[in-house]
Amino acid sequence: MTLSGVIPPVCTPRGADGALDRASLSRLCHHLVNEGVSGLFVGGSSGETALLDASTRLAALDVAVEAAAGRVPVLYGVIETGTARVLEAARPAAAHGAAAIVATVPFYVAPHPAEVLAHFEVLAGGELPVVAYDIPSATHVRLEPSVSIAIAREGYAVGLKDSSGDLAGMRTVVEAVRGLPFAVLTGSEVLADVALELGADGIVPGLGNVDPAGYVRLYEAARAGDRAAATAEQARLTRLFGIVDVADRTRVGFTAGALGAFKEALVYRGWIDSPSTWPPLAPLDDVEKKAVHALLEQYLGRS
Amino acid sequence: MTLSGVIPPVCTPRGADGALDRASLSRLCHHLVNEGVSGLFVGGSSGETALLDASTRLAALDVAVEAAAGRVPVLYGVIETGTARVLEAARPAAAHGAAAIVATVPFYVAPHPAEVLAHFEVLAGGELPVVAYDIPSATHVRLEPSVSIAIAREGYAVGLKDSSGDLAGMRTVVEAVRGLPFAVLTGSEVLADVALELGADGIVPGLGNVDPAGYVRLYEAARAGDRAAATAEQARLTRLFGIVDVADRTRVGFTAGALGAFKEALVYRGWIDSPSTWPPLAPLDDVEKKAVHALLEQYLGRS
Amino acid sequence: MTLSGVIPPVCTPRGADGALDRASLSRLCHHLVNEGVSGLFVGGSSGETALLDASTRLAALDVAVEAAAGRVPVLYGVIETGTARVLEAARPAAAHGAAAIVATVPFYVAPHPAEVLAHFEVLAGGELPVVAYDIPSATHVRLEPSVSIAIAREGYAVGLKDSSGDLAGMRTVVEAVRGLPFAVLTGSEVLADVALELGADGIVPGLGNVDPAGYVRLYEAARAGDRAAATAEQARLTRLFGIVDVADRTRVGFTAGALGAFKEALVYRGWIDSPSTWPPLAPLDDVEKKAVHALLEQYLGRS
Amino acid sequence: MTLSGVIPPVCTPRGADGALDRASLSRLCHHLVNEGVSGLFVGGSSGETALLDASTRLAALDVAVEAAAGRVPVLYGVIETGTARVLEAARPAAAHGAAAIVATVPFYVAPHPAEVLAHFEVLAGGELPVVAYDIPSATHVRLEPSVSIAIAREGYAVGLKDSSGDLAGMRTVVEAVRGLPFAVLTGSEVLADVALELGADGIVPGLGNVDPAGYVRLYEAARAGDRAAATAEQARLTRLFGIVDVADRTRVGFTAGALGAFKEALVYRGWIDSPSTWPPLAPLDDVEKKAVHALLEQYLGRS
Repeated sequence: MTLSGVIPPVCTPRGADGALDRASLSRLCHHLVNEGVSGLFVGGSSGETALLDASTRLAALDVAVEAAAGRVPVLYGVIETGTARVLEAARPAAAHGAAAIVATVPFYVAPHPAEVLAHFEVLAGGELPVVAYDIPSATHVRLEPSVSIAIAREGYAVGLKDSSGDLAGMRTVVEAVRGLPFAVLTGSEVLADVALELGADGIVPGLGNVDPAGYVRLYEAARAGDRAAATAEQARLTRLFGIVDVADRTRVGFTAGALGAFKEALVYRGWIDSPSTWPPLAPLDDVEKKAVHALLEQYLGRS
Repeated sequence: MTLSGVIPPVCTPRGADGALDRASLSRLCHHLVNEGVSGLFVGGSSGETALLDASTRLAALDVAVEAAAGRVPVLYGVIETGTARVLEAARPAAAHGAAAIVATVPFYVAPHPAEVLAHFEVLAGGELPVVAYDIPSATHVRLEPSVSIAIAREGYAVGLKDSSGDLAGMRTVVEAVRGLPFAVLTGSEVLADVALELGADGIVPGLGNVDPAGYVRLYEAARAGDRAAATAEQARLTRLFGIVDVADRTRVGFTAGALGAFKEALVYRGWIDSPSTWPPLAPLDDVEKKAVHALLEQYLGRS
Repeated sequence: MTLSGVIPPVCTPRGADGALDRASLSRLCHHLVNEGVSGLFVGGSSGETALLDASTRLAALDVAVEAAAGRVPVLYGVIETGTARVLEAARPAAAHGAAAIVATVPFYVAPHPAEVLAHFEVLAGGELPVVAYDIPSATHVRLEPSVSIAIAREGYAVGLKDSSGDLAGMRTVVEAVRGLPFAVLTGSEVLADVALELGADGIVPGLGNVDPAGYVRLYEAARAGDRAAATAEQARLTRLFGIVDVADRTRVGFTAGALGAFKEALVYRGWIDSPSTWPPLAPLDDVEKKAVHALLEQYLGRS
Repeated sequence: MTLSGVIPPVCTPRGADGALDRASLSRLCHHLVNEGVSGLFVGGSSGETALLDASTRLAALDVAVEAAAGRVPVLYGVIETGTARVLEAARPAAAHGAAAIVATVPFYVAPHPAEVLAHFEVLAGGELPVVAYDIPSATHVRLEPSVSIAIAREGYAVGLKDSSGDLAGMRTVVEAVRGLPFAVLTGSEVLADVALELGADGIVPGLGNVDPAGYVRLYEAARAGDRAAATAEQARLTRLFGIVDVADRTRVGFTAGALGAFKEALVYRGWIDSPSTWPPLAPLDDVEKKAVHALLEQYLGRS
């Protein structure tokens, strides 16, 4: 398994019955693979994983693995507060076809960086390779660059998914892990071109659900050294990313606004059936949906 | 079930084999009940619940229920990031003997207060009564007083465990829920006397593992209107609470330092066998353990 | 000078010409003294001091000193980012009649607690006694209780104005400074009764501009040991304090909403002429003003 | 005046008498100009401006203006909590030879973005052009990209000094202000090459005091499109920037550690006489100074 290219954190469609909409998820995964992504990341933040029970999370993994059909690897996110919980949630992943797990730092608790490192040391004993997941906006615990570097040097993980927003920190990690079997993936939707130039191996953009071909073009342009093309794609995608801000924040939280917009866009594209998010996230209203559509009409790339 | 008195968030002893030390937990629960607590809260933050897998959490519940033997109710904490996860983790609790669940707000995600309320609305449909758990230092999401009040008015929960540190907010809730079947429990170790004076129904102090009789005396003095006695107990307990600060924070995180100190104190008292905390928390060193002992020698109340 | 009783942080009226409205300030100060306050605190956060230039700040001091006419001491707030700036701003205060300065910790910079202590050591060399001002919601630097205690023990200051919201910390300071010439003043509008019970010497409530007699009654009841009366006053004042939340926060910041409400209330009482706040704070709109009036009609105490 | 190139935020040397060391500052400014900087920024965060009184700040401006001798413009930082304070502190700047002021958002208070915009509208009425200064790590108030864009469109300022760390936000501003007379300067020491590629007009690195020639080479390489050369300079400078982390943070604050290291490096280079920082910042100890020297020996560029 090579961690590179575009690996979207796949949205988790919810059916009218309040359960996983397997058909929509399968359709979405097929579209993503057909548009050229290098992997599927099921169980990430964009997948509303923090809001799903265990059987739904595994069912989503099953659907993605079946849809990928070996064409691309499927990564499985494990958003859990502690070490034993990660191990427990990760245990069935290999049998269900995951190629690696993507695990957060411990959160809710307040760990010391040395304890974060110890966490990944334990996780390294699991069946699957681990990608360390740094998303302090959600966990409120930073995976410090120095800890990521130690993880890479000790071989506790095969990569980092960096959603910290700290590009200087990512750069430090990229330079320190050069030559090690350790991939650095950026979670940024709007600095993907820059992250690639700085040496990131791949990108994991939530917006990649909506416009996978755009991110693939961006990635390939960057790899080919065609900076102008990468920047132009990025500029368009950044405008498209405006959909995460259309929701009225006096009514819905940021997560609901952003993920509701991704799902509304996927409905618009015909890739999933319903924009329904998982409880307790509130839905977009009609005005907000229209604002999503308007941005899609203006900025969605044509494959 | 009445939610009042002292309901300690029970520590979760870890054995030399890295598994739940059932004998120690049972002994601890017996001591707590014998010293007069009104309930046992298994699965709270002091129980390192965020670091335990599901079977360990349920095993701890089993031990506590057996030890309580009907003398006091056992509450079961459900520290989970989302609604479906709470429902899933809470599902077996009734059959295992829990009297109520204590559930956090959604975290990791960034919910709007209206989404927090919707979360508790869903939880109200579960088998057991719910106590809402406000601990923003851990979740980084506040359960706003206005939401707690709405929860009480709608009957979504039977109480609030307030570990917010916001005594003014707690007071607002206390006054607004007067007459409703809704208990307010403070999680404060050091303002328990004040919280009781302001109308809190009970206290849920982590330090109550170590000195349950002291908190029981404090509670009873407060209930009897003997402010001087309550204050004197509080003053002693506050000094004893200094054990949470003995750890060298350049080496271990706050959680490890505080919970390691509680466990070291329980070993000192002979109530559990080992101060071992759950991975990835680092242990106290010998100097720190001696500092815990010194504070215990000076400030531990004698039953 | 004794630091006790009610010492309101006096609002700074702004005239139609955009300059200090001396007549209104003088009228306000007369009302405050006549209603029984123990001192006037000019230059605090409620006085919008961070938004005033030096000559306006000193002019406000002059007006207050003249209005106080020796009946009560006038404290002078010095909200400055660094030690030399505090010394500079404090220098003229004695000649202008201030009895003490109230100085923040260094902010904008990120000081170590030992550097905060060193700051107050230097300030102690000034002409006037110093009250240390802890308001981390504004400075984003905590004056740690341990540092306040060191300040008291070293004699660097004669008191603490505690607007931290950390009642447990205040209690620690109160107990540690017992017997020292060091007063602890709470800045809380809504826990003033509790703070007094815990040993605070006085209260510095922004809402004391609007209802000084209420806070004086609360203080005297607390001092007389009449807890029921103190609590009843507090309950009413807490409801009145709702005026700080009437503003639409999608339009104005918290500071503008709260201080605009205080000023609107003072206009309503006839104590100042205009609710104008200092640039760049936005004014309340008519709907918000009416909401302030409604709360005043319901909850303003009659002298 | 063109805002481009390298404009270091000049350190403010402190003499053995505790006053401004004019000779050292003059020497420093001469070195900076001789090494090719495009401007001098006196009164910035690296100049410890928050810790200096008004006369020292103006004296530093005088020395810099005299040293610059018209070869480069001198910008004057105005770190003040409110609008009137900025106007007051900026008033003498033109007469003292400043080419522009660099003004923070209001802080200490909690302004709404619309109030931040109103602040700069007022400042635009002053004598000198304004550069808006976004440094939320110090002010704890963000100058939102949308507000910077509005400032540019309204002509309230001639530029932005972006020390937010938010490269995506900077990029948004750069793209929105294209064609407007509005320069974007990054305050980043470690992403200067990236910021320039993204369209920043210049760089304002605190480390530029220590290695101005390195940043000038970086800037010129970036302008010439020689990405490899820019990146190589950046990599070396990033390693050199490690000096800000040598201090023991259990003993000194971050500001003291970073600025003390800059000054120690300037002493090492012979450009100033003493590493003394301004009260209440604590000095580096000998071990820390040696660590600074070691990094200088390894990574300091030779002119």
